Amino acid sequence: MSYDDVLKVALRRGIFFKTSEIYPNSPAGFWEYGPYGHTIKQKFIEALRKKLKLLNCVEIDGSIILPREVFEASSHLKSFVDPVVECTQCKQAVRANTIIEEKTGERIPEKDVDKINVLLEKLKLRCPRCGGKLSKAFLFNLMLKVDVGMKEHECYLRPETCQAIFLDFKRVFKAMRGKLPFAIFQVGKSFRNEISPRQSLVRMREFTQAEIEVFFNPKKEDELEFDWLKSFRLNLYVNGRSIETTPEMAVENGIISSKLVAFHLAFIHEFYESIGVPHENLRIRKLSEDEKAFYAKEAWDLEVLTSLGYLELVACNHRGDYDLGAHSKHSGIDLKVLDGGERVLPNVFELSIGVDRSILAILDLTYRKTKDRIFFSLSPKLAPIQVCVFPLVAKDGLPEKAQEVCKLLSDFEYVYEEKGSIGKRYYRYDEIGVPFAITIDYRSIKDDTITIRDRDTSQQVRINLNELREVLEKLLRGELKFEDVKGERVS
Amino acid sequence: MSYDDVLKVALRRGIFFKTSEIYPNSPAGFWEYGPYGHTIKQKFIEALRKKLKLLNCVEIDGSIILPREVFEASSHLKSFVDPVVECTQCKQAVRANTIIEEKTGERIPEKDVDKINVLLEKLKLRCPRCGGKLSKAFLFNLMLKVDVGMKEHECYLRPETCQAIFLDFKRVFKAMRGKLPFAIFQVGKSFRNEISPRQSLVRMREFTQAEIEVFFNPKKEDELEFDWLKSFRLNLYVNGRSIETTPEMAVENGIISSKLVAFHLAFIHEFYESIGVPHENLRIRKLSEDEKAFYAKEAWDLEVLTSLGYLELVACNHRGDYDLGAHSKHSGIDLKVLDGGERVLPNVFELSIGVDRSILAILDLTYRKTKDRIFFSLSPKLAPIQVCVFPLVAKDGLPEKAQEVCKLLSDFEYVYEEKGSIGKRYYRYDEIGVPFAITIDYRSIKDDTITIRDRDTSQQVRINLNELREVLEKLLRGELKFEDVKGERVS
Repeated sequence: MSYDDVLKVALRRGIFFKTSEIYPNSPAGFWEYGPYGHTIKQKFIEALRKKLKLLNCVEIDGSIILPREVFEASSHLKSFVDPVVECTQCKQAVRANTIIEEKTGERIPEKDVDKINVLLEKLKLRCPRCGGKLSKAFLFNLMLKVDVGMKEHECYLRPETCQAIFLDFKRVFKAMRGKLPFAIFQVGKSFRNEISPRQSLVRMREFTQAEIEVFFNPKKEDELEFDWLKSFRLNLYVNGRSIETTPEMAVENGIISSKLVAFHLAFIHEFYESIGVPHENLRIRKLSEDEKAFYAKEAWDLEVLTSLGYLELVACNHRGDYDLGAHSKHSGIDLKVLDGGERVLPNVFELSIGVDRSILAILDLTYRKTKDRIFFSLSPKLAPIQVCVFPLVAKDGLPEKAQEVCKLLSDFEYVYEEKGSIGKRYYRYDEIGVPFAITIDYRSIKDDTITIRDRDTSQQVRINLNELREVLEKLLRGELKFEDVKGERVS
Repeated sequence: MSYDDVLKVALRRGIFFKTSEIYPNSPAGFWEYGPYGHTIKQKFIEALRKKLKLLNCVEIDGSIILPREVFEASSHLKSFVDPVVECTQCKQAVRANTIIEEKTGERIPEKDVDKINVLLEKLKLRCPRCGGKLSKAFLFNLMLKVDVGMKEHECYLRPETCQAIFLDFKRVFKAMRGKLPFAIFQVGKSFRNEISPRQSLVRMREFTQAEIEVFFNPKKEDELEFDWLKSFRLNLYVNGRSIETTPEMAVENGIISSKLVAFHLAFIHEFYESIGVPHENLRIRKLSEDEKAFYAKEAWDLEVLTSLGYLELVACNHRGDYDLGAHSKHSGIDLKVLDGGERVLPNVFELSIGVDRSILAILDLTYRKTKDRIFFSLSPKLAPIQVCVFPLVAKDGLPEKAQEVCKLLSDFEYVYEEKGSIGKRYYRYDEIGVPFAITIDYRSIKDDTITIRDRDTSQQVRINLNELREVLEKLLRGELKFEDVKGERVS
């Protein structure tokens, strides 16, 4: 199970760890990122931003605290609920559908409390912790409440980043002189009062979401041109069946409802491949009616096969005009915009990316253990450092020569280290996924050559210092494979 | 008053605006950033990150929600309070010291409720809104409470980002094989339940902080070498007196308590200058005993002169061993680390940067209005877009030629626009501070020349297309002044 191993390295190297861990009674479901983890997360977000240029997407930065009115309109106060039972003995709360599903292996519709209570009775379920008697199931709202002012404003922490995008849509559309389809992106913290937070970054109470909301004219959902997507291989999973197809074919065959949906599913599929998730580990699963969020007309989950099984990383929802319609109605503000002379209330297609889960999935998928070392085979796009610079020993002019190399690499993300045996230094940085290391040895002083070591294979090649920048740039961009680097192979 | 003018442009161009503005009863003190504002804010943070490399600083990403224990240890639950009066008629709450200060022009110690009550009585102050009778003053805690789980965990939204840095210090120090002095950075949202939020980005209830905590051995506070700081000009303000001095001299003369403090004050002074805040508008003011935060041994505020007067942008606090000591004591965990063989509880010097206020101050300072246009004279480091590409007209092959230019500039942040008169296009992008615009005209097709226009002066110069990249790069980096660009001057 690489999940447990990943967790061990994460703690040892401070990649991520529990919030407020020095206070042992801190609540579960809160985690934080140390320097390496933070950098990986930032690089994930940067890679996404770069890719978003394809969608002509703008980004906003909205508030976390929003007033009650917003969530009344969005229906979160009514519908954003989980069924819960409480143990009458140890007072522990548990998700009711989960304990039934664990017993029967069958999926239970989450909002059907009556059915859940019948099943709890029939299966004679007891508290999984202490064996105590369980209460009747009830619906528990996942929103976290905050009173603002001297209690005069009932507010909530946002349970998803997208509400600000809907609230701000019209102002942003106008200010940016937008045209439909128009995409708005936001990345930031969201909060859900999960009853059973678990598996570290997988189910947290405070988590980072990156959400893309694509606003479009529903009459023009099929007016997109496919271009680069004509030949894209999409791994779909519909009714228990895997289907490998192109976006275009999927629409023609009625598997995906429109070109617009197909385009954005392919977009997100391709994004995960571009940061190193193998094509075979990805699938986009169509959700059944009772799995969908309350606002969704059509829903797909991008899932990645990890050591924990398939993990949902991106919820892809056709939200119809649910959101703009609800906010229009509750605020009394007309949120229609002009599209080619016609006044339209846009529909929304959403890609809602779980950033923390994505980081965990990537660490899980790239974790490698050999008999003498552990490494993360991270894409250079995500590695927290691009290259290490090591003098073989910390004397005889080698550190000085190594500093020359550092100067040469000033616009790369490098780390310099001279302490410890060279093997230990390699292994230390392998553990955080640094793709390349440069070693300066006695020969370097004589003939201006250095060796580059490849993290994944441990192979080394000796090249001239004046070729270093170009070789490294190409390796990092993926334009050159390590086995094709010209030079003198070392062991 | 450029503040009001800035606000007008901000709304018109969606730079920033009220949260949840379509619901008119949304609470005050919450603002959000549209695309241009978001980019300016991101660039501010990126510029800071880049500068932080000088301090050998690592960055973490911690939780916003923290348990009660943390704020009991930090004393925030007891001491993070403002004196408040409530109107018995309209029920409005107001900061008690503020209304007294507005009446008397004198500073009132915030925590001295007895003195405040005497003054309220003596001055016969009434509600500034409705003239109603005021309640007695009382202390109001600024922390926002959240119940996590089914009410079993009393938690709070962080009122500053730094607590996570203290809680995580030892793990991060070890994981990164740290040596003192060791700096940790965090940027993110913080929350304070301000009674009188005001002036948009100046006093918000939800705001972005960028905090640098420098951990050091108190015995070695004077062991730093100054290097580049020997000649740095520091504008200090002590006891009502302006002092221009070098960091070194300020320590020698006993104005600043140690080299470490002087170094970091100069660091932050220089940072604001590097992003375009004029030297003359900056000062670092020494706080008096009753102005300091409850945890501070010595405190300075970096202030910037704006149209609203001097605005505090950075709180610079010598926190001593207050934080690590308090968390050690309350958690029972030893937070000492090794420094050259000695076990030390580090002291902390903090730079606490108000990001939103900084953005507002910069917009205020760079706002320019002439008879026919408005522009922000933003540093290219902060401008939301680096360059515009405009074909003079949208026909006759000019758009095609302009697309060639776009291709050439693919690694710049450019915007292409062909609609509207050329004058309107210039003015539109002046309003968000784009420093340069390139125009493609009929002559461009014939002789491969284009014009570059300078935002600040409206001057234009015609250059060859093959010089464009180099000229633009130098202009953006500040290595070339516009008046020195070689080419044919246009009007």
